[in-house]
This record gives sequence, C-alpha cells and structure tokens, in this order.
Amino acid sequence: MTPKLFIKSLLVLSCGLPFLTSAQTNPKLTQYVNPFIGTGAVKGSLSGNNYPGATVPFGMVQLSPDTRDEPEWDVACGYDHNDNFIAGFSHTHLSGTGAPDLFDILFMPCTGDEKTRAGNAQQVGSGYGSRFSHDHESAKAGYYQVKLDDYGINAELTATEHAGFHKYTFPKNSQGRVVIDLAHSIKKPNFGCHVIAAQFHMVNNHTIEGFRVITGWAKLRKVYFYAEFNKTIKSNDLVDGGTQYFDQKLLNGTDLRAVLNFDTGDGTPLLAKVGLSTVSTQNARLNLNTEIPDWDFNKTVAQANAKWETKLDKIKVDGTEQQKQIFYTALYHTFIQPNNYADVNGDYTGIDYTIHNNKAGFYSTFSLWDTYRAANPLYTLIQPQRTAGFVNSMLSQYLAYGYLPIWQLWGQENYCMIGNHAIPVIVDAALKGIPGFDIQKAYEAVKNSSVTDHPGSPFKVWEKYHYMPENLLTQSVSVTLESAYDDWCVA
Amino acid sequence: MTPKLFIKSLLVLSCGLPFLTSAQTNPKLTQYVNPFIGTGAVKGSLSGNNYPGATVPFGMVQLSPDTRDEPEWDVACGYDHNDNFIAGFSHTHLSGTGAPDLFDILFMPCTGDEKTRAGNAQQVGSGYGSRFSHDHESAKAGYYQVKLDDYGINAELTATEHAGFHKYTFPKNSQGRVVIDLAHSIKKPNFGCHVIAAQFHMVNNHTIEGFRVITGWAKLRKVYFYAEFNKTIKSNDLVDGGTQYFDQKLLNGTDLRAVLNFDTGDGTPLLAKVGLSTVSTQNARLNLNTEIPDWDFNKTVAQANAKWETKLDKIKVDGTEQQKQIFYTALYHTFIQPNNYADVNGDYTGIDYTIHNNKAGFYSTFSLWDTYRAANPLYTLIQPQRTAGFVNSMLSQYLAYGYLPIWQLWGQENYCMIGNHAIPVIVDAALKGIPGFDIQKAYEAVKNSSVTDHPGSPFKVWEKYHYMPENLLTQSVSVTLESAYDDWCVA
Repeated sequence: MTPKLFIKSLLVLSCGLPFLTSAQTNPKLTQYVNPFIGTGAVKGSLSGNNYPGATVPFGMVQLSPDTRDEPEWDVACGYDHNDNFIAGFSHTHLSGTGAPDLFDILFMPCTGDEKTRAGNAQQVGSGYGSRFSHDHESAKAGYYQVKLDDYGINAELTATEHAGFHKYTFPKNSQGRVVIDLAHSIKKPNFGCHVIAAQFHMVNNHTIEGFRVITGWAKLRKVYFYAEFNKTIKSNDLVDGGTQYFDQKLLNGTDLRAVLNFDTGDGTPLLAKVGLSTVSTQNARLNLNTEIPDWDFNKTVAQANAKWETKLDKIKVDGTEQQKQIFYTALYHTFIQPNNYADVNGDYTGIDYTIHNNKAGFYSTFSLWDTYRAANPLYTLIQPQRTAGFVNSMLSQYLAYGYLPIWQLWGQENYCMIGNHAIPVIVDAALKGIPGFDIQKAYEAVKNSSVTDHPGSPFKVWEKYHYMPENLLTQSVSVTLESAYDDWCVA
Repeated sequence: MTPKLFIKSLLVLSCGLPFLTSAQTNPKLTQYVNPFIGTGAVKGSLSGNNYPGATVPFGMVQLSPDTRDEPEWDVACGYDHNDNFIAGFSHTHLSGTGAPDLFDILFMPCTGDEKTRAGNAQQVGSGYGSRFSHDHESAKAGYYQVKLDDYGINAELTATEHAGFHKYTFPKNSQGRVVIDLAHSIKKPNFGCHVIAAQFHMVNNHTIEGFRVITGWAKLRKVYFYAEFNKTIKSNDLVDGGTQYFDQKLLNGTDLRAVLNFDTGDGTPLLAKVGLSTVSTQNARLNLNTEIPDWDFNKTVAQANAKWETKLDKIKVDGTEQQKQIFYTALYHTFIQPNNYADVNGDYTGIDYTIHNNKAGFYSTFSLWDTYRAANPLYTLIQPQRTAGFVNSMLSQYLAYGYLPIWQLWGQENYCMIGNHAIPVIVDAALKGIPGFDIQKAYEAVKNSSVTDHPGSPFKVWEKYHYMPENLLTQSVSVTLESAYDDWCVA
C-alpha cells in the first residue's frame, strides 16, 4: 500500500467510525472477531446469513456447521443461530448472500447405530445429525468448536485456503464413525439442483477421496476432495440411495454417503484433513499436502488466526470493546469473499468449464450489487494486490462471456440483481492506479459490457423507450439509477 | 496382424459367410456399402437404428440428418427412413443402439423468413426444418447428400475423425441462412436431459465457435465446436429462448440458436467446416485445422472414402452383388463404433470429468452386451491395434470407477443391460496375444470387476441365494447364464 493510499484510507474510514489510530502498538485484533455476529435474527426476519465456521481470508474452503439437512433461502449460509441441530460440517459456504448454494462434502462424526440420512431437529435420533447448544459452542477467526450433544463428541474445525482440518474428541470407550455425505446440498430441486455424478474411492485404510458434479445456483460445479485420517478406517459402508456396499473400495452414483468406522475408545482425538479442488482428486491431494503437511491441529489454528491478524491489522481503531468487536468482525466478513478457487499450483476449472492455470489465482463469488458501493472501494485501499486479482478474474469472464460479471458464483454467471457493477469496481481500481492489470483490456471490457445485451439486462427496453417503464421492467427506478451510475463510470 | 491371426480370421469368418478370397486384385469395396441399410423398418417395428450420414472409422464425428426435432427411443440414431422431414444435420450420433442420445451442434441451411425452431413434418413451414424425398437423397461411405425440398437447397456432408464438412448449394438469387441449434437433443426430459450451459461466440465474419454442456443418457458431456464458412457472415441473430440478439458477438444461455445470414445468390456453394472437441474451442479449432486445412470438399470426401476402403479391405469375399452389399455394409457398421474422443493432440475429457492426454487416443461408446459376442472378437482379428486401444480405454474406466465398463457412453457408465462383458473382450484379447496393453493390469481389472458390486449388479442377490430368483431380479436366467460365462472367462 502506498502512503498516499493509506492517507486516503484514513480519510475514508474516519467517517462515522470510532477514532482511528495507527501509531499504537500491535494488540491482538482477532480477539475482537465474533463469528456469531450476523448468524441469527429474531425468528422470521432476515439474518446476516453469516456462518460461524472456520475460514481464512479469500480462501476456497469455508468449513462450517449446517444446522439444516437441506438449507434453503432463509439459511443461505447453512447456519441459523436459532437452530439447535447440526446436520454436519460441510466445506464450502456463502457468506452474507440472499440465495443459497454450495455446502460441499459434509462430514459428521457420530456414535451408535449407523444412520445414513441427516435427519432433523424435530425427531431426535432420526439421522446422523445431532442436537447442540450455544452453551457448548465457541468460535474465533479461523476456528470453530461445538459439543454434539446426542453423541458427547467435541468437534473442532480449522481451515487453510484449500483444506479443512477436523478434530473430533469422542467419549471414552466409544466406537466412532464419520459420515461423509456427497448428496448434502440446498433443498432440491431449488435452482434445479441435483447431483449429476459422484464418487467415493477408498484409497487406503487412512484415506478416502472422491468428487461430486452438481448443478444448482451455480450451473455446474465439480468438487473433488482428498481426505486423510490419523486413525485406521476399520471398516466402511458406502451407500447409494438405499443400497449399502460394505467394505467396497469404490462407489459411483448420485446419492452417495460413506460411513467410516474407527476405534475411538482410547479418548485420543480423531483428526481428519480434507483438501478440495475444482480440478481433480490429485490436485485436492496436492492442496492438502502443501497446506497441512502434518497432524498438528493447533498449528493450523494458529496459522489461520495469524492470517486474520495480518488482514485486520490493515486498520486500527479505538473505541469501546463492543465497538471494536463490531468493527473488526465486519472487517473480518469483508475478507471472507471473493474466494480464490485456483489450486496451489494455479490450476482451476474456468468459466468455460475447461481447465486453466494462473499462478496468481482465480477469484470468484462476485456478489457485485452488494459489494460495489463499499466493500470493493475498501479493497482498493487496503487490499490493492487482491483487487488486481479480482479485476483480472472479472476480465477473464469478459473474455469468456463477452461481458463482465453481474453475480458470478464459482466462475459462473447467475445474473442475480440489477446493474452492471463490475464497471464501477474496475474503473475505481483503474483511477486509483492499482497496478497488476491491463488498463486497455479493462477499458475495452468496461465499454463493451455497458453496451452488450445479456439475459436479464434492461438494454432492449432502454434502447426502445429511452427510459424504463415499470410495467415492462420491475425495479425500474433502481435499474435506471444504477445503470446511469455505471454509464457515468464508463464515461 | 500376425500370420497366425490371419489364419484364425479366415477360419472364423468362413463360417456361414460367402466364400472368402484373399488373393484377388483390389476391387473398390466401398461401392458395396449402402448406408441406408438398417435405417428404417415397417412402421412400428424396430429398425436397425443406423444413420445414413457421413463418418470415418472409429471417428468422433458422425454428421447425419435428424428426421425429428427431438428424437426419442424409436429413432435412437436420429434418422427413420419412413420420415420425410429433416430438422437438420447434427454432428454426433449413435449407431445401432436401443437408446438415444447425442445429436450435438445441429446445422440447417434454409432460405426465406427467419425461423428459430425446427418445426415438424406435420406443419409445413412451421420451422427451419424441411421436407425431403428419398428420390433426391444419396449416401456412400463418408458422404451423404439430400435435396431440401422446402428450400431447393442441395446439402452434402462429409467428415473426418473430429470434423464435419458441409456443402450447401442454394438456389440462384437466394438469400441463404444457416441455423445452428445448440438446444437440439433427445426429447427432454428423457434421462433428465437438459442443457446446463451453452454459448455462441462470433469469432470473426467467417467464424463462429461455442459449446454446450448437457446432461442426458451420458450424465455430463461438454461439446465444444469451432465452425468456419467460406462466405462472409453478413449478419447474425443469436437467440436465447424467445429473445433475439441481433448482430451481437456473444451469447450465453441454455436454449440457444444462431441464425447466420449469407449472400448465396451467385449460386456458388456455401461451405462450412466444423471441428469438435470435448476439451475446448481451441482444441476444436486445432482438430479442424489439422484435418481440414483447405476448402476442398471433394478431397475430404475422397479421403473419407479411402479410409473406409482400407478398413473394408481387411476381408475379401465373393458372392452376389446383394451378398457383397449386405456383407460390406455390415462390416462398415462394425467400424463406426467405438469412437475415439481424444483430440488430435491427445487431450480428452476423461471418466473423472477432468482433462487427460493420451496420444494413442481414448475410445468410448462401449455397448458391450451387444458387441462382446461377435464385434469384439472380430476386432481382435482384423483391428488388433484398435483392440489394444479399446482395452486401454476400458482399463482407464476400471481405474476411475473401480470396475470395467458395462455400457460406457462418452466416457461415462450408464449401467445399461446385463452381464460384465468387458471381461470376455479383454480375456479374448489377452489370450490372442494382442500387444499394447498391460496384461497384469488387465488381469487385476478383470478379476476385481467380477467381484465388485455396482448399481444394477446382481451381486448381492447372487451372494445371498447362490442363484438368481426371478421375483427378485428380472431376466434372471439371462443374468445367470451371462454372469457364468463372464466368470468362466475370468477363471
């Protein structure tokens, strides 16, 4: 960050915020992050749709509890603070969005009778899910913990950019299981959601890998995983729909769950490390081995926390404890998305569904209507390098789609909300002199996007009437205002 | 082929066939191929489901007319000789199967009012489709021709391994169009068929590229194309559902058609060359430029015909003209499938939905229940090198799925029909000493496949009862017989 930008950030951020100070010694700022802020609301009203689980800044993995078997629009992030049931811990989540998707590769530890459906809170014991209480739940930046009351299991989670790290402490003398559910998703068929293909492969007696190809809000996602356990998988049951395959090495299907059995009676924790990739199980393994080479859970927690500290350290504020908690949790939320979906070697499944490589990464989850006003301008000030990454990823959509993102999820346009708000984001970055992207290409993209028609765009109506009649286009006033703003940015 | 194998082939093929001779001079054997054999039957009964269009041995492209807008089970190959309507010419077809799929990237030349739906035979002018008559239709190995009666257009087709070549002769003083339909498929939602994503991109005023990602009988296929015309595209209309986008460069959607307008008034033919790939539009372009570098339609026809001549030349028979026509057309049909889906550089989208490379190719469309008795043993005799390729591709399914193919379509298992008939195919190849695959790996695959349970397999019932009760498993006698045969092959 240049000094000039830093002064700007002071000016911008001093408006309406607690008193800023940059001369102070370095306090632990992550202590002010409360991941439960935004996770619940009075029943029936909208919450912030934030999840309390473990993630690192701009990471691909968001390992967090899902309090519903099939989350819908009211729990777009998977977690509602009003719930008292956990279906399991899935590895990908949206933060703060209005619409739900993701929830990939759910893990759930349990004991007792084998169950292969999550069940629900209303019927105790109806599935592998468990009740929980906020009295035995905690979270900080990069770490989440909960006691699963139905099993007496203490579950702890942490994450790196491409991997989740699970620590399950079972009761003494228990026979522990882990269920992996590849069918867990938003309630089908919202957005036509269904699993197109999925697979489990028992690699050895400590390792399972697989994938799912799923269509949902993002039209097509390939999610590969590679999971290692610190204890021996004694036996396994691979399940497709209602059919069980005991101790089989491989299973293909569309409604898959794996039940893995372990000796957990000695009370030492069962650890599971899970790498993800959009490209292949090999890359998922590479991601995992690169980021979590050993079995030191606390070390990964400390690393995750340190990454957050570095990010939060960009801005220092004074104020009451509560003001700091509000401020630094909000700052924490701004660094959760967009997400870098490229593997550690730069491979990623691109916008055209084929494999690309960019060592600098590939960012997606651009909820631009929500972020162009405040979050993106903030990134230009305190995350200029990431901003260049965001712009380059948006430009790659321009190359593949012919126009910049409206709302891009896992590299795919879903045309959600109005406006053309990649334009102000890119123009802002260009005018502030952020280095690292091709200004000429950016200008071409901005200009062409403003005159290119696409599904859901108001272009045809505007061309015909030179205004937006409400009877032809809902939200006509907002559309007019926002389009005018975007056009002004192009100009 | 070793001399020993040649003797074997003489022995095998002399059973029930016209008298064999190998000492004769070389007559043009492709003259005996009649691609219309197997294309029709008495209305209501099953035809051979063979198509009359242009293809080369084991090629990826099968460019052939579809006589229905949305082919179903009764027209699995897209063409019924009883029909008098052509919806267009799509680039991929199944030959001789019971179930339908593919029909990718439909092209249709037309004149007059713009229409963006194919229509049907019952309502003349209801779409861009046209009536035709067998009086003005002809076909030979690697070539197809038809007069489109509604437009007075003579359409000719030929193909290479990865590309289709279209020649459309429009009436003098006509304004010609070509419709490209990316939504054309089996009748939706058979097999849950729907287009997940599609795109058109006007590359320049002679070129259009794009793709479709589709789920159908094959769970997921990515089909990229790159198409060049010899005449200037004067204007275009890209259509998504009911919305038209005139002279736009790019369109994304799920219900896409492109209408391209040309000056065809001088009576010189409009030529279109179309490359396909499962990997990317870049690879589709590479495939096209490698295989059809120039605009010489007749040269490509001659090359396709020559490829067939070389294949048919493997066996020489004497007999009546009709006997030779029956024999060589049947031999022609045996060389249409399996298909090599790898690009000219070896890239292909593999069984795990990620990109692989094998310079020796990747074969799919293994309809093994249909082919293990006769076609595959024939390949071991007269196509030993291809047989090694088939075995290696089957082994790659074993590696990815844990068991050998049952019915593999575009690299994906659909579990159609009974038995485990990759086993006899591989064992046969091994016992005959076909070189080019790993015998140890083949043995492991054959053995493990015979004891691995999978969706639709009779394994559980067999293990429990040691026989197949008809009330628990339909086709129990066939399943028993065929499983016993496969097990004997393993032994």
